[in-house]
Amino acid sequence: MGTREKRVTERGKKPAVSKIEASRITRDVLIEAAQAIMSERGGVDFTLSEVGNRAGMSAALVQYHFGSKEGLLFASFEQGIGRSLDQLRWLSELKLPAAKKLRMHIGGVVSAYMQKPFTNRLLHLLIDGATNEKAQRVADVYILPIVNFHRDLISQGVEEGVFRPISEMHFYFLLVGACEHFASRKHVLRYVFNVDDVEDAMRQDYADFVYGVVMNGIAA
Amino acid sequence: MGTREKRVTERGKKPAVSKIEASRITRDVLIEAAQAIMSERGGVDFTLSEVGNRAGMSAALVQYHFGSKEGLLFASFEQGIGRSLDQLRWLSELKLPAAKKLRMHIGGVVSAYMQKPFTNRLLHLLIDGATNEKAQRVADVYILPIVNFHRDLISQGVEEGVFRPISEMHFYFLLVGACEHFASRKHVLRYVFNVDDVEDAMRQDYADFVYGVVMNGIAA
Repeated sequence: MGTREKRVTERGKKPAVSKIEASRITRDVLIEAAQAIMSERGGVDFTLSEVGNRAGMSAALVQYHFGSKEGLLFASFEQGIGRSLDQLRWLSELKLPAAKKLRMHIGGVVSAYMQKPFTNRLLHLLIDGATNEKAQRVADVYILPIVNFHRDLISQGVEEGVFRPISEMHFYFLLVGACEHFASRKHVLRYVFNVDDVEDAMRQDYADFVYGVVMNGIAA
Repeated sequence: MGTREKRVTERGKKPAVSKIEASRITRDVLIEAAQAIMSERGGVDFTLSEVGNRAGMSAALVQYHFGSKEGLLFASFEQGIGRSLDQLRWLSELKLPAAKKLRMHIGGVVSAYMQKPFTNRLLHLLIDGATNEKAQRVADVYILPIVNFHRDLISQGVEEGVFRPISEMHFYFLLVGACEHFASRKHVLRYVFNVDDVEDAMRQDYADFVYGVVMNGIAA
């Protein structure tokens, strides 16, 4: 915010940051604060006041921008998942062999879960607590694109003669389960494998392992 | 309880059920009630009164037997996981080829998670909320045996020339993640794949798929 405020002052008379932009920036700062708290605590156990405090703003402002804690959780989730869905779209349009796409996809999923381990927990919290209609909408917007990507990837691999035909449902659960588990079980890493921090090389090793198993496992 | 009470009456003078046994039976009934509630709700959101009501007993009795909700959760977890660990010990001692053991293990893990989907959630809830010492004890008693089983299985497979050497940590996360995900994501099954109930055949199909991928994926 510091730089932006400075810019406003320097430009003089007219405010350089429109009301809409200012509102967007405030929302981003609050979402960042909420995400930082969730990452630290490994869960969604926080109050709106804590988020306000962290961002140097009032709880009332948090309330104003998100309506409720659920609203803030949803906004955090959308921001966390947005980039991943963009990457998926980008990857699906690349002209690459299926095996190469599979490797990049697994690397991306492991990375995404490691960077925002709360995103997936949030997704399931939001669906669990939702009405059927809302749960269906969340599933359509955030899970279906992954399943569709898997279906296209399997078709492509089968056409190329490198994958055997498999169910996209089975594939989804195995792949996402394998990637998510590694990222979301910090205490297993700590208390069973004596790993306190997952470094990049270790994350890469795990992604390579999953790719090797899945690639050989579904080979034609 | 009905049959047991009748037996006591029929045998006459001496109570056929000792105080210790009666206490054990009461505990079992209460644990069953708690597990039924958790299965229905897909979570641990319940009160001791609700458990008492379900079992036809008072909340005070629940308090007496388990001390607190955490005590009841822990007892439920131990009862849920106990049989699985027994199976694991039994399987590890069987004189069977590694591939056959792997197939039985995957079938067992998928079944266990399908039958008691709350067990694993409970485990992680108990570890997350625990002191370091307690978390270490839970990991040693309930997770380490699985990892040790995996290590032995990999060694056996490598010796038999059917598996390539792999990290037991990687193997643990991929296998358990794949099995657990399928069992614990009911709303993905419902809202993405239109599956409301997982029937035995579908569970078996998934276990076969995971076995096929893992077996080919780690083949020597």
